[in-house]
Parts: sequence; C-alpha cells; structure tokens
Amino acid sequence: MPASFGEMWAELLPVGRHAGSGGYRRYAWTGADAECRDWFREQAAARGLAYEVDRNGNQWAWLGDPAAGDAVVTGSHLDSVPDGGAFDGPLGVVSAFAALDGLRARGARPTRPVAVVNFGDEEGARFGVACVGSRLATGRLTPEQAAGLRDADGVSLPQAMERAGYDPAAIGPDDERLARVGVFVELHVEQGRHLGDTASPVGVASAIWPHGRWRFDFRGEANHAGTTRMEHRRDPMPAYAATVLAAREHAASAGALATFGKLSVAPNGVNAVPSLVRAWLDARAADEPTLGRVVGAIERSAREHAAREGGEVELVRESFTPVVDFAPALRDELVRLLAARQPYEVPVLPTGAGHDAGILAAKVPAAMLFVRNPTGVSHSPAEHAREDDCVAGVEALTDVLAGLACR
Amino acid sequence: MPASFGEMWAELLPVGRHAGSGGYRRYAWTGADAECRDWFREQAAARGLAYEVDRNGNQWAWLGDPAAGDAVVTGSHLDSVPDGGAFDGPLGVVSAFAALDGLRARGARPTRPVAVVNFGDEEGARFGVACVGSRLATGRLTPEQAAGLRDADGVSLPQAMERAGYDPAAIGPDDERLARVGVFVELHVEQGRHLGDTASPVGVASAIWPHGRWRFDFRGEANHAGTTRMEHRRDPMPAYAATVLAAREHAASAGALATFGKLSVAPNGVNAVPSLVRAWLDARAADEPTLGRVVGAIERSAREHAAREGGEVELVRESFTPVVDFAPALRDELVRLLAARQPYEVPVLPTGAGHDAGILAAKVPAAMLFVRNPTGVSHSPAEHAREDDCVAGVEALTDVLAGLACR
Repeated sequence: MPASFGEMWAELLPVGRHAGSGGYRRYAWTGADAECRDWFREQAAARGLAYEVDRNGNQWAWLGDPAAGDAVVTGSHLDSVPDGGAFDGPLGVVSAFAALDGLRARGARPTRPVAVVNFGDEEGARFGVACVGSRLATGRLTPEQAAGLRDADGVSLPQAMERAGYDPAAIGPDDERLARVGVFVELHVEQGRHLGDTASPVGVASAIWPHGRWRFDFRGEANHAGTTRMEHRRDPMPAYAATVLAAREHAASAGALATFGKLSVAPNGVNAVPSLVRAWLDARAADEPTLGRVVGAIERSAREHAAREGGEVELVRESFTPVVDFAPALRDELVRLLAARQPYEVPVLPTGAGHDAGILAAKVPAAMLFVRNPTGVSHSPAEHAREDDCVAGVEALTDVLAGLACR
Repeated sequence: MPASFGEMWAELLPVGRHAGSGGYRRYAWTGADAECRDWFREQAAARGLAYEVDRNGNQWAWLGDPAAGDAVVTGSHLDSVPDGGAFDGPLGVVSAFAALDGLRARGARPTRPVAVVNFGDEEGARFGVACVGSRLATGRLTPEQAAGLRDADGVSLPQAMERAGYDPAAIGPDDERLARVGVFVELHVEQGRHLGDTASPVGVASAIWPHGRWRFDFRGEANHAGTTRMEHRRDPMPAYAATVLAAREHAASAGALATFGKLSVAPNGVNAVPSLVRAWLDARAADEPTLGRVVGAIERSAREHAAREGGEVELVRESFTPVVDFAPALRDELVRLLAARQPYEVPVLPTGAGHDAGILAAKVPAAMLFVRNPTGVSHSPAEHAREDDCVAGVEALTDVLAGLACR
C-alpha cells in the first residue's frame, strides 16, 4: 500500500528546511535535492512504476509502456528558491502520485501511458536560470550555455550534475522522450490570490505572462560620506531610489508587476558615497506591448533621475520570456472534466510565474491546475495552502488523468 | 641622504593598489599593510630616528629622547578604505618625514623631542571600527571590545595582529606613551572642497563634526515577484527608497550630511519581493542638536513610509562620536605660524571626517592641517591633490614643527 498524500507530505516536509528561517533551501544537485530525488524514486518503486532519469536529470515514473507514446504526463519540481515555501513544486509531484493512487482507487484503467515527472532545477536558485531541466530537454537552453552557468562558488552546472552522480556528457535536447508525451498537466499552488478571492479551490491556467529581467547599473562617483557636501555628490543611490518608486507607479497604473528585489552596491561602505548601485528589475504584464511600455517608462525614469544626479545608468536585458498561451483545446477540456464532477466554478486565470509547463508548451500540449493559496504568498516560508484545498487539487488532477488517459 | 618627498611618494604608490579599480586596498594587518609598515621603518632608519612599535601596533620614529616628554608629534595613517585614494593617510606620514628633513635643511634645532607616527587601522575597513590604533591607546576601545571585532572571514583583531607578528596580549590603554606627547598635529588631504574654492593650498581644522551610524532594518514580507499584485505586497524596498530621498532632503536643508552607502537585501533574489532591506545611514552635522534633528526627521520618514507599505522599520544606533573642538590655543598658534611665513590666507575649517587627531584630542592638545583637494573627492581612486599643494603642505608642516619644537 503506497503512502497517502499526508504521509508523502510529512516525509518531504523536513528535507532541506532551514531551522532559522523555516524556509526551504533545496537547491539543484545539492544534498537536500538528492534527498528529494531519493524520495521520488522510492515513491515510484512503492507503486511498481518504471523509474528512469532522462539525459538532463529529470526523473520519470511510468505507469504503462513509456515507449507506447501519447502519454499523459503530470508532475512539477522538488527544488526551491532560497527560503521558499513547502508547496511551490512539491505539491504538484505529491499530488501526481496521489492522483495515480486515486485512479486505481476508482478502478479506472488507463488506455494511454501515464507518467509522473520531477523536472530538475526549476527555480534556478543555484545557477540563475529557471526551468533548466525542461529548457535543456526542449533545446531552449543548449549544452554549451549550460556549461557556462556557474554557482556562487564557481561550480559549473555540468560539474554539479557530475558530482551528484549524473553524466554531464549526456546533457542536451531530448526530442525522443518529448515525442512520447501526448499532454503535460502541471498542478501547482497558486502564487497570487486570485482563487483566494473566490469559492473555488482549483483553477485552470489560461496563459503565462511575458516576463523578463533587466539589470540597471546606476553609476556615480565614490566619495567620502563625511565630507562631501550633498550638492557636490554624484551619488547613484538617490537615482536608484527614485527609480524604485517610479517602477511601482508605472506597474500599478498598467496592472503590471515590477520588482527590484536584488541589489549590489559598490564599494558598499557605511562611510562611502557609492560609485555603483546595480539593481535587477523583474517585470511582467498580461501582454508584450504593455510590458514594453512599462519597462520603457521605468527606463526613462531611471535615465532622467540618473542625469539629474550627475550620474548615468546602463541597462542590460538579461532574459525575456514571451507570453505562453496554453493550448486552448486542452484548457477547455480540463475545465469540462472538472466541472462535470466538482461542485465549484472552475476559474480560468493567467499567471505571472514561469513554469516547466510553460517551457514544454512550445513542444507538446500543456496545461496547468492551480490550487488556492489564501494569502497569495509564495517564495516565502509563509506560503500556504489549506489541507482541504490540497485534497481538492488531488481530486481535480485525478479527474483530469481519468478523463484524458482512461477514455 | 634620505628620500625626498617625491621619492617617498613614488615608493608607496604601487603598494596595495588594485590593478582593476586603480584604488588602494591597504587593510590593517594584511600584506599590503605590512609593506607600508616596512616602508615606515626604513624611513626612520634612513634618518637615524629611534624606531618603536607601541603596544597597539602604532609605529613611532623619534628625533630626540622619546622619554623626555612634551614631544611634538606629527603623522597620520597608511591604511586605506576599500578602493581608496593615494592621499588619505599617506600624505600626512610622507609629509611628516619630509617636514623633519625640512627642519634639518633650515638648520633648525629642536628643543623638544619630535616624532613621526603611523596609527594602525585608522579606516576600520577590515574590522568595522575606525581609528583603532588611537582608540586603543586612549582607552576609547577596550581590549575586550577589540577581541570581539572580527573581519569578514571571522578572524578577530587580536588574531590578525598576532599573525602580523605583534603581541595581542599587549593591546590596551597606553597612558605612559601619551604622557610623552606635548602636542599632536596631523596633516591630511582635505576630503571636501572647501579649500578648492579658495586661493589657499593649506588650512587649519576648527572641529570635527559629530557623526554616527544608524542601521535601518526595513521589514516586509517575502513574496513571488511574478505573481503578487502590487497592491498586495508588503515590500520593504519602496519604503527604503522613499527614506533615501527623504534623507537627502533633510540633510541638504540643514546643511548636514546623510548617506546610505551600504545595503544588504534578503533574500536578494531577482524574482523575490524582499523580506528585509538592511541599510546603514551615515549622518553628520556641524553640531549635535542639528544632527539629532536630521536623524530624527529621517527616522520619522522611514517609519511613515514603512507603515504605509504595510511593513515596519527598526533602528539601531551602531556608533556615535560627539563633536571634537580642536584646542583653540594650538589652532590659533598654527594659523599664526603659517601666516607669518606663507603668502596665502589660512582658512580655519571644520570637517565631517573622523581622524586619529580627533581621538587623541581627548587626551592631548591636537590640531590638523588640511591640504587642498581640487575636486573634494576622497575615499575613491579619483582622490587627488596637486603636487605644488602637497609641497605647500610640507612647507606648512615644517613651519609648524619649527615654531612648536625649536623655540
């Protein structure tokens, strides 16, 4: 008898949890990650599923013949952001195993192969690029680019995978494996509170907002904080500060998102006027023209304020992900399958967060289920979903697997 | 024949200079610091001066009997801030040796002992506390407090001194040595451009502004930057940004100085709304009531903005140095001595920067000479003083030594 949802959840809960912050530090190819991956393998074994690791380190557990094709695949990831919550990623993997158990409990007999997948390094906490496992499989990240990624200690991604026991020479596009996938459905805790304002514990994704990262280098002149008169300074900090406030205004008025969450200051001395404030903007919006207008407005504000302070600012777009519209036919089918069995309205909602489902969507029909998050808090130890909502998520995913794989 | 000013300057110039930034990284008790200290010992030897290192690692070079008392002491420091300039500190030490040579060249015969001193760890770049050598000697920093200071690698101050070849058990107040000092005169490059706006290459210090450091912890709620609507955030970054702008306004309108030059953000992820922005305020003003008003106004702004963002802010005063009024009689005598021989007006000006002279002023009559800095830039690789102004500084210091020690 395989572990129940609650038992699986309890097993994962202590892995990689930081005692001080209460948050998770499950970074790709570290010890905590290995513990999560051992857990995945054990869950596959406990259910008699065929276990395999693909060339990019993604884990698969198969019910039925992996080579038969047209498989219904579900799952998510087990790694975390720094001090992340317990739900982001693991909820989708645990729910996937529980939904397989649910299928069996219903006596449903799949006519298509069904697989649970754990994509490696989804959060990009260690190497700075998100969705590495799915990007490598789909060719969105090349082995050469992967080899150039390094963690804070200078360890490259292939080195880290090798140290974790995987073959770095195998890394690369995996068309053969993707060709086996008929559809991919990822269940995920919602990372906003759209559902929190409704009576529905589960919703279906419509699209992933286009999003990107821009690095702003505000440059001025280092100087002595104790002797340089305010009017003689070329301090980049006020220009940065004014840009933070402008970014919030521009984003709020456009219904978009703009965040300055990462900073590096030089020389970063208490008694030194800085020479450089390097700040990263994360910006997202419902469509690309809106995103372009918001980022353009923030850039103009930054340039104006930098010039007013006698400094300058340089912008580098470090990454950009276009809008992902999930396959409309699959999305509508999910809504229909849920509505047929569940008593609640099934909201269809967009998200600003990237996901492996968004990467795979370029190659296979993909869809997402979101489980209600009462506060909307995510990427934080305070991230939460109610137990009955998690159960509703498993039910919904079971409905989806039954509807798609057991026709 | 001892080295000339230009030769001494050229010898020190490459020591501890970072090829990338062009700035100096002469941190206390490191290899670069040891090179500077070797240079000091060699200068003492080349002039036949009695060399000694006191219990706190400060270097002394004596002309005449160190034990005779009522000595005229001059000097400064050789360490640097991160990526500091060539002049801050070394100009005072090099000028001191050159002024001794000037005395001899004039045929002046000291009737009091004259010493050149290099105070250790003036900048506090490594252990976070400035003027360590003079603070220890005067008892302003206790051996117990010093033992608690650690660098970024966890090395304590006594451990660092021991590794550099000094006896950490000797650290402590040095009343006996201070009792030998009749007056202390420190020559220093100006770190503002007061003199830069005048026709005078050299000025005399009136006072050191009161100054302090305050740590502001802006706390909010970590969240996903891609999914949390702007109006649902409790982001500490906008509160910090608004406080930066408020600090500048409050300081400028009071003729004071306020700087946010050091920052630490958690979790510091591009796609994470921060939970914490920790920022250090350096604030200085001409008098303590003004400083109190400015810091109070900045604190109120911070609390208002933090509350408006649904967060909070906590303040900790990490250090505070009261106003230092240099001994008026000695200051007036310096002005008189310079005015008697030099063709320029001798401005008397305050400074916002801390100095060993300010620490010693609590125990012995102390004074400072400032050498013109055309841009006012300091604590930066761009710090500069013109060669003829440096020569004027040596001339002025020679006048002072002749006037004080050769009566």
